[in-house]
Amino acid sequence: MKQKQKVVVLVSGGMDSVTALYEADLKYHVVYGISFNYGAKHNSREIPFAAYHCRKLGIRHEVISLDFIARLFKSDLLETGGKIPEGHYEELTMKQTVVPFRNGIMMSIVAGFAESVGATGLVIAAHSGDHAIYPDCREDFMISMGEAIRLGTYVQVEVIRPFITMSKAEIAKRGLELGVDFSQTWSCYKGANLHCGKCGTCVERREAFILAKIKDPTAYEEIVPLPDKPTG
Amino acid sequence: MKQKQKVVVLVSGGMDSVTALYEADLKYHVVYGISFNYGAKHNSREIPFAAYHCRKLGIRHEVISLDFIARLFKSDLLETGGKIPEGHYEELTMKQTVVPFRNGIMMSIVAGFAESVGATGLVIAAHSGDHAIYPDCREDFMISMGEAIRLGTYVQVEVIRPFITMSKAEIAKRGLELGVDFSQTWSCYKGANLHCGKCGTCVERREAFILAKIKDPTAYEEIVPLPDKPTG
Repeated sequence: MKQKQKVVVLVSGGMDSVTALYEADLKYHVVYGISFNYGAKHNSREIPFAAYHCRKLGIRHEVISLDFIARLFKSDLLETGGKIPEGHYEELTMKQTVVPFRNGIMMSIVAGFAESVGATGLVIAAHSGDHAIYPDCREDFMISMGEAIRLGTYVQVEVIRPFITMSKAEIAKRGLELGVDFSQTWSCYKGANLHCGKCGTCVERREAFILAKIKDPTAYEEIVPLPDKPTG
Repeated sequence: MKQKQKVVVLVSGGMDSVTALYEADLKYHVVYGISFNYGAKHNSREIPFAAYHCRKLGIRHEVISLDFIARLFKSDLLETGGKIPEGHYEELTMKQTVVPFRNGIMMSIVAGFAESVGATGLVIAAHSGDHAIYPDCREDFMISMGEAIRLGTYVQVEVIRPFITMSKAEIAKRGLELGVDFSQTWSCYKGANLHCGKCGTCVERREAFILAKIKDPTAYEEIVPLPDKPTG
């Protein structure tokens, strides 16, 4: 039997990356799940869910602390930043939540780590709905970054994006098939006791379950009508 | 008068990056010099020199700690690794000193930091002699990484490599013109009290001064004949 490719999975504890972990666990030999604590308001809420799912699947889990981000970078996503805006991602205010080059930094670290532990792949849950407001989510960035990682490592570490053609609702459906318990995942950027239901990532989470026709297991602080998607 | 471009310089405290700092200080507005403490044996010897030159030029200096590298990565360059090999870089043993994807990780972090502090360029002292044994020093990696950084940041952060066509000896000559005091720079991977004179980076340092016909101001632990360059 052909040996499965060894991979490391970026798993934040959100619904996409947790589903990617289950998906990767089917197809690859997942040697580690990696979470980053970079001083975001919601890190302390999401990382325990990443740990929970790794434990459930028997996958080693490692948390990498990037203390310097909260100290030196500017973003309202961070403990050191301002309030999390509410409404759709597409709105200009959500730009405040960008952590500059966050995906580039995380992917670079996981690439080096993968090579250190004998893995040849890095799995990231990037999907087709990822946001144009985040330059380091865009397709052209991902392709160049994948090239840089392939060329910059001895074993030519491959960036694997299993959900690249899928929407968040399709990922939710796939998660359900894979047996993911979405009540054990975290999205809300505010990082309070409950999901707020109103910030960009809560709005997106609620919409994904509605579009996927899946019962949303999330306890929201407040259920307000979903805002209309801004046009153009 | 045209305003100078704001840049952040990667400055380890070695002779190349210190010269790059002086070079950048002429041409750009250097908003920060950044050093990384990633648990390498020589970090504690080189970083004080980076701080020294930033102070001398009136440039803010920041040290970013990457604790996870010594904890999770494998390399003899690290405190957690084995002995530093001696002889020329080209030799196979020097491969043990590779820290997987180190340049990718450092460049990603500095790219995000640059965007956070309003800089649009990142200066790195990569040069033509950088080693084929390090995949993340090669030209094709640097080009893809530069693309990823440009595409993954709002302000399209530019990777600036002032020494890309120069040899280490040419950098030494340029440093002399710029008034760099090379006695206040550190190369040796062993990180002891004096430069060992025998490891790959000491051999390279000694050769650079000889080829540049510059008096080598370094106090070496032992002056042994320089090894012949391996052919092929």
